[in-house]
Amino acid sequence: MCKEIPFISTELRQEAGLRLRKLTPLIKESGADAILLASNTNLYYAAGRFFRGYVYITSEGEALYFIIRPDIFATEEDLIPIRKPEMIPDILRERGISLPSRIGIEHDSLSWSDCTRLQNLFPEAEIVNVSPVMRRARMQKTPYEISLIRQDGLHQAAVYHKVSRLYQRDMTDLEFQIEIERVLRLEGSLGTLRVSGNLMEINMGSVIAGDNADNPSPYDFAMGGAGVDPSLPGGASGEIIRHGQTIMVDMNGNFNGYNSDMTRVWSLGEVSPLARKAHNCSIKILRELESTTPGTKVSDMYHRAMEIVEAEGLTDYFMGHRQQAAFIGHGIGIELNEQPAITPRSRDIVLQDMTLAIEPKFVIPGVGAVGIENSYVVTPTGLDNLTSFPEDIINLL
Amino acid sequence: MCKEIPFISTELRQEAGLRLRKLTPLIKESGADAILLASNTNLYYAAGRFFRGYVYITSEGEALYFIIRPDIFATEEDLIPIRKPEMIPDILRERGISLPSRIGIEHDSLSWSDCTRLQNLFPEAEIVNVSPVMRRARMQKTPYEISLIRQDGLHQAAVYHKVSRLYQRDMTDLEFQIEIERVLRLEGSLGTLRVSGNLMEINMGSVIAGDNADNPSPYDFAMGGAGVDPSLPGGASGEIIRHGQTIMVDMNGNFNGYNSDMTRVWSLGEVSPLARKAHNCSIKILRELESTTPGTKVSDMYHRAMEIVEAEGLTDYFMGHRQQAAFIGHGIGIELNEQPAITPRSRDIVLQDMTLAIEPKFVIPGVGAVGIENSYVVTPTGLDNLTSFPEDIINLL
Repeated sequence: MCKEIPFISTELRQEAGLRLRKLTPLIKESGADAILLASNTNLYYAAGRFFRGYVYITSEGEALYFIIRPDIFATEEDLIPIRKPEMIPDILRERGISLPSRIGIEHDSLSWSDCTRLQNLFPEAEIVNVSPVMRRARMQKTPYEISLIRQDGLHQAAVYHKVSRLYQRDMTDLEFQIEIERVLRLEGSLGTLRVSGNLMEINMGSVIAGDNADNPSPYDFAMGGAGVDPSLPGGASGEIIRHGQTIMVDMNGNFNGYNSDMTRVWSLGEVSPLARKAHNCSIKILRELESTTPGTKVSDMYHRAMEIVEAEGLTDYFMGHRQQAAFIGHGIGIELNEQPAITPRSRDIVLQDMTLAIEPKFVIPGVGAVGIENSYVVTPTGLDNLTSFPEDIINLL
Repeated sequence: MCKEIPFISTELRQEAGLRLRKLTPLIKESGADAILLASNTNLYYAAGRFFRGYVYITSEGEALYFIIRPDIFATEEDLIPIRKPEMIPDILRERGISLPSRIGIEHDSLSWSDCTRLQNLFPEAEIVNVSPVMRRARMQKTPYEISLIRQDGLHQAAVYHKVSRLYQRDMTDLEFQIEIERVLRLEGSLGTLRVSGNLMEINMGSVIAGDNADNPSPYDFAMGGAGVDPSLPGGASGEIIRHGQTIMVDMNGNFNGYNSDMTRVWSLGEVSPLARKAHNCSIKILRELESTTPGTKVSDMYHRAMEIVEAEGLTDYFMGHRQQAAFIGHGIGIELNEQPAITPRSRDIVLQDMTLAIEPKFVIPGVGAVGIENSYVVTPTGLDNLTSFPEDIINLL
């Protein structure tokens, strides 16, 4: 007996309609008559369910779902089974849909070869890059998307409540991480994470103990870490956690296709006064930024954080010590790293229904990483925390 | 105290030289004067260590490593710290290296936008797609690469020896998988897997029990599975494993940047005679294909397997039942799915030092998936198995 999953449930069909109404004016604004989506992330966004195929959306808001695999769900009129994308133009003609004179293709997330193949379907059309449009549409979440991230936050908190009892004496950072990964999976984490671009390679999250926090990594994560192999040089290094060190737990909560992101710090024994001060500074920054309302410049969030860091004399330790990152957070959704990036150079404006992970962190030599990260949704009156969990350093001894 | 990892150890430098000597004639043959690599996989291949940056290789075999992050390892003459790729042409000129008139760019693995940015560095140059060259170079492994995959196979076998004792009564497929993932990680699995293309999204491997094996998935895996969420519809479905069902364990062994791939089957009680027959047919196919020598057409491996399947009257169950895949295996290396794909349409020839995962599998309605998968290296006299582990169905009761 096989489990039948409807391609789009009534709830998801309504949701897809809502997303479509948000997308359509942005497509028009970009000058495209239509867009053809093919990246895993945007297929999932457009359909509420991942499949292999393509979604064609006109600037009038008509959407057709072309499905290569699996084809057994293709029973509704706008779900069209195909074997290859070259069948799309004829199907459009048959349905009386005129071929676009400007077509949007995802230049930032599809390979050159995939883009070329899709662009060749419309040899007469001018090509525009639709990736910025999709990022912009996805930046502000629907109520349904927010509810998914809120669910993630609850699951993630349930896991973090179990973290202390997973520690055993003389454990390495990696052994600790593995036990946390297991509890995350048992709580319902899907394991696999979607990320934007190729500058993140990660297995469910990162656990960084002691001075490993200061090992620079090639990846775009807030903290580095040496990793255990030169093929994936990031994160836990396999060293035994020592007295006086912190363990920063920054796991990701993908329980439903959307991610929450939360960081908390555990320690072996008391940490140094400097580390405690920096940790409290991180909490102070979050309390301050939680009053951010729609209309604020994203760059001003960064600058406000830096002002607090400078006032406390902690600049040398902020967002790394040997290698410092000039950002304090990022949008979050289907992908771990969505728009906006909270950086000094951002030109974005904070908008209602954005979901933001804010992670002001410090690296204290001889101790490790401190500071926390919460995921928020932007409301008219400020940021609403989706990752509620005690914020102080938790002593494991 | 930070852990210093040399950018390229003496051993890896020697290895990089060997890979370069293999690449150079292929670059020449492609007509390019030089190639500029930027994908994570090929950076790791070219340097033996992942970093963020670029590798420039001339058709004369000169290689320059341009490093954005981390830059602290850039102490040798051919390791050049840069902030952005736009600095590359001037550095080439300064070093007396003439700019290429034909440059190879990875069109199959870099986004359109990334390719455009790199192609704009050389506005006078003709552009060629270097992805096929890289796939061809990586298809035949060096002794060092083979030794890494051999190590993976040993680790993977050590984990599979523990699988039986991880089962507990009334477990779901997913709970069983989570315990296997944990043991894999404790054995040293890096967790994250690299794959080619966007048709695989996977967390360390797949565990498929009972009729879930017949749930079609959008992904390019041998077996499907419904998954537990429409965002990632593949693999374990969260249902309790029942008496008479098989559990196919197809986890991946990435312990060092390279992958081994091995599948074995466990069962709850005895399985049906048809399932047993199909499982034995899979073993028979592997025994037969193990005598494959260099020079054989890859497509003939597929056809030989199909002959055996047809002779046993098992065609309806081969490589799926409701949705069948026309392939029986794939190359394996840094990526889980390398060249060649063992399909009826392949034009590849079996070459010495290729590493192949061969996975003739069946889906038996009411029972589940059966059949095994081994990873092999091609030697002058046949295939050498890198994943040695008992091949019969293992009864958990």
